[in-house]
Amino acid sequence: MRIPLDRAAGRAGKLPLARQIQLYLERLMSQGLLAPGVKLPATRELAKELGVNRTTVALAYDELVTGGWARAHVGQGTFVADRLPAASEAPRPAAPRFDWSGLLSKNAQATAADARRRQGFSQVPRPARGLVSFAGGMPDSGLFPTDAFRRVLNRVIREEGRELLQYYPARGYPPLREYLAGYLLRFGLEARPEEILIVNGSQQGFDLVARTLLDPGDFVAIEQPSYPRAMQVFRAFGAQLLPVPMAPGGLNLEYLERLLERQSPKLLYCQPSAHNPTGLHMTAAARQRLLEVAERHRLPIVEDGFDGTLFYGARPPAPLKALDRSGSVIYIGTFSKILFPGLRLGWIVAAPELLERLEMAKDLSDIHTSPLIQAAVFQFCRQRLLDRHQVKILREYGRRRNALLAALSRRMPEGVTWTESEGGFSLLLTLPEGMDAATLLPRALERGVAFTPGNAFFVDGGGERTMRLSFSALTAGQIDEGAKRLGELIRSVQRQPERAERNTQPAVPLV
Amino acid sequence: MRIPLDRAAGRAGKLPLARQIQLYLERLMSQGLLAPGVKLPATRELAKELGVNRTTVALAYDELVTGGWARAHVGQGTFVADRLPAASEAPRPAAPRFDWSGLLSKNAQATAADARRRQGFSQVPRPARGLVSFAGGMPDSGLFPTDAFRRVLNRVIREEGRELLQYYPARGYPPLREYLAGYLLRFGLEARPEEILIVNGSQQGFDLVARTLLDPGDFVAIEQPSYPRAMQVFRAFGAQLLPVPMAPGGLNLEYLERLLERQSPKLLYCQPSAHNPTGLHMTAAARQRLLEVAERHRLPIVEDGFDGTLFYGARPPAPLKALDRSGSVIYIGTFSKILFPGLRLGWIVAAPELLERLEMAKDLSDIHTSPLIQAAVFQFCRQRLLDRHQVKILREYGRRRNALLAALSRRMPEGVTWTESEGGFSLLLTLPEGMDAATLLPRALERGVAFTPGNAFFVDGGGERTMRLSFSALTAGQIDEGAKRLGELIRSVQRQPERAERNTQPAVPLV
Repeated sequence: MRIPLDRAAGRAGKLPLARQIQLYLERLMSQGLLAPGVKLPATRELAKELGVNRTTVALAYDELVTGGWARAHVGQGTFVADRLPAASEAPRPAAPRFDWSGLLSKNAQATAADARRRQGFSQVPRPARGLVSFAGGMPDSGLFPTDAFRRVLNRVIREEGRELLQYYPARGYPPLREYLAGYLLRFGLEARPEEILIVNGSQQGFDLVARTLLDPGDFVAIEQPSYPRAMQVFRAFGAQLLPVPMAPGGLNLEYLERLLERQSPKLLYCQPSAHNPTGLHMTAAARQRLLEVAERHRLPIVEDGFDGTLFYGARPPAPLKALDRSGSVIYIGTFSKILFPGLRLGWIVAAPELLERLEMAKDLSDIHTSPLIQAAVFQFCRQRLLDRHQVKILREYGRRRNALLAALSRRMPEGVTWTESEGGFSLLLTLPEGMDAATLLPRALERGVAFTPGNAFFVDGGGERTMRLSFSALTAGQIDEGAKRLGELIRSVQRQPERAERNTQPAVPLV
Repeated sequence: MRIPLDRAAGRAGKLPLARQIQLYLERLMSQGLLAPGVKLPATRELAKELGVNRTTVALAYDELVTGGWARAHVGQGTFVADRLPAASEAPRPAAPRFDWSGLLSKNAQATAADARRRQGFSQVPRPARGLVSFAGGMPDSGLFPTDAFRRVLNRVIREEGRELLQYYPARGYPPLREYLAGYLLRFGLEARPEEILIVNGSQQGFDLVARTLLDPGDFVAIEQPSYPRAMQVFRAFGAQLLPVPMAPGGLNLEYLERLLERQSPKLLYCQPSAHNPTGLHMTAAARQRLLEVAERHRLPIVEDGFDGTLFYGARPPAPLKALDRSGSVIYIGTFSKILFPGLRLGWIVAAPELLERLEMAKDLSDIHTSPLIQAAVFQFCRQRLLDRHQVKILREYGRRRNALLAALSRRMPEGVTWTESEGGFSLLLTLPEGMDAATLLPRALERGVAFTPGNAFFVDGGGERTMRLSFSALTAGQIDEGAKRLGELIRSVQRQPERAERNTQPAVPLV
């Protein structure tokens, strides 16, 4: 630790060195620079570093302990106290603040504007006691195969640790790309390992696609409702979003064709399987027709392959990418839903010419994705642990989905409708005419139930009557209780309509 | 696996189902879609999936084995053969190719132009037998504490696995940010945990800074020579680079002042400690003066904190960020040099107002960095394993650095000069007048020695006479042998000058 000492003052007895050290450390603690519980350097080490006597440091530490700033544990050392003395509330010294606001890029400005617009949309309340939260949209960590994953991590570090902890080529760990080539064949998607780029989850996939293809002012056609973070990243790179409404079984293709006659979007973004938030699949016929329209207009498609393996009825049709003969579809896949979101691991399948550009963008973004994580997931897959895990979670999430559909039928008043989720973690519920999900949320929280207001999934100002209900992280009992509370709330609002306040900022990623 | 079957043809005996399955799999293998060694689905599973008799699939597999396409292992299953039959060289059926070239963003175009310009600069030859490679610039994986890291990974998964494998807030794992706040105090840098953002290595730090602050046409002042990947990312976001030459002990501040009188760069990028490629530190006085100039001109500084703990003589002065009173310095740190590059783990320290924007950009880039990796590194640090590792590598890299300086003194002819590396992994050597490092490289490779031509570290067309020599991954014996080969080559060129060919593309990240 560098502590600036005034040795002249020390010698003159004006401010002894021990006192200088004590005051310096007190300032660090009071400003939060040394956090409660942190261990101070050993007296011998600090004395050596500062070029002072060891007793000088020991004296300073004694004073800190006496003053309640630190606690000493014999044989262990001296630690910052968990609660600092009251005198510690001294404000940080004011300094002239550098003003960053005028220096922000258009990208940063667009991101902030989007964040402001979405304030309150994506609010995920902190889990309160007894709260049933249909917000979230993430897998249930209670189902995570953490111990099996620990074992494969051990194995790959033992066997390949040196290579996996060193720099690595941007495209990714070859055995994982080979595995994925085989995995995708299960869905009819034919991709060679060299046509696959490993990325940090599908979010980085959107980001790399956006920076590689979008310039400010470009148009992006987007299925509506749609995944908010995809919209946000396209907007950050300056794109204007053109919503294309869904129709039974797929997109409204007549609408899309009319749009394509007037405008030339750079790409279309959609989620044909296990669509978030509705949980619906696009039919095989609708996929075929969409691809025909897109090819006729030379419109590239970004296909978000979001948990296409999590389905609750008929298996979803083959991905658009499986039907793509010309190379105009970009497929983005992820391990976040079928395994662990926290790994940040996903992949992009694209035509070699484009994949090379995406790889360059990946290389500049963060050089490569951790090869250790890639190798561990490969090992997990190779031992068929992913297959087993998928069987297990599919059964469990299917149960929860059935519980939610049954509870809604039982608990919802007339006028409320919802999508019959066929895959993924959620469905979209529509309130009776005149109601607004975002304004309903504070009252729902009072009653102990939470959801994600649907306008987060619409491009601008749409979907006020809708809300996303995620069933993935709740037990059947919680699901029924939550539906009951929500049904009662809707009934009470139907009896006495009244506007409620919008809510504050999101705390947790909306996924 | 989805195999489209023509059941009518099967029934009519025109093309039996087994034959259809066999041909389909042969096509996948010949097109590289099923890689050598991959296990085919079990006959029972595939039969169930396709709705055919198990013997039908078994028959198809038998034919594949007979034809040399697959090999069967009793009790294990059937695997794609390691070498496919000669007939397999059938080309992939041609399809109309979607033309992406006209759709690329300015960002992608700038990235590609930079890549073309750098072709040959950053060539890192594949390790040939006996080759001594001074190229690379990465830590020696032979010194990695892989087993200790395996143990901390085990511990954090056991204790916090569920939380660490779930979605996580973008700013990062709080205990790691607290640890870093204490770690940075060692260098005199005072940062509270909430002023620290965890990122995927310093590369993502550059990327987030660039997207948050740079618009096309903006200027970026950059220390010259400098780290190529930082230049590339600023260029990708449309910036024009303004090189500021180094002077003894720091930057040429007169030059910088003249530049600032004419132009208003959005930021200045520099590496004050263990500068890559020279290995030099900026003096304390030069740091102070640089900060004064920057503050007078309201010029933000991006301080690349690259391995500031790896020093071989006097300890480097405190970082610029430690002297920054107004919040105009952005400090980017990394675990890549002091621990493992493959983890992709680094951090940014910035004023809270800016950090919030950088966090939004991080959130859109990839949501967050793997909390598992963050927690493991925190645990590694907390157990003081990083401190111990640093002592060990500092000693070892110091030995190698001394060996290189000694070998150069012994082996280089008159007219060759080099920087006396004070930190990091490398030094910069300057050839005698009239020589060009890039044209020298092929002949160096013939003689069994490699280096990184210096023009990769200059903005445009500069540094032809320079080369970076990295000593981090070589033994003292290799270093002396490499210096001998290089010295002999330079002498031979001095005797008979002759132009050599430029070289081909890079294979491994230039760091």
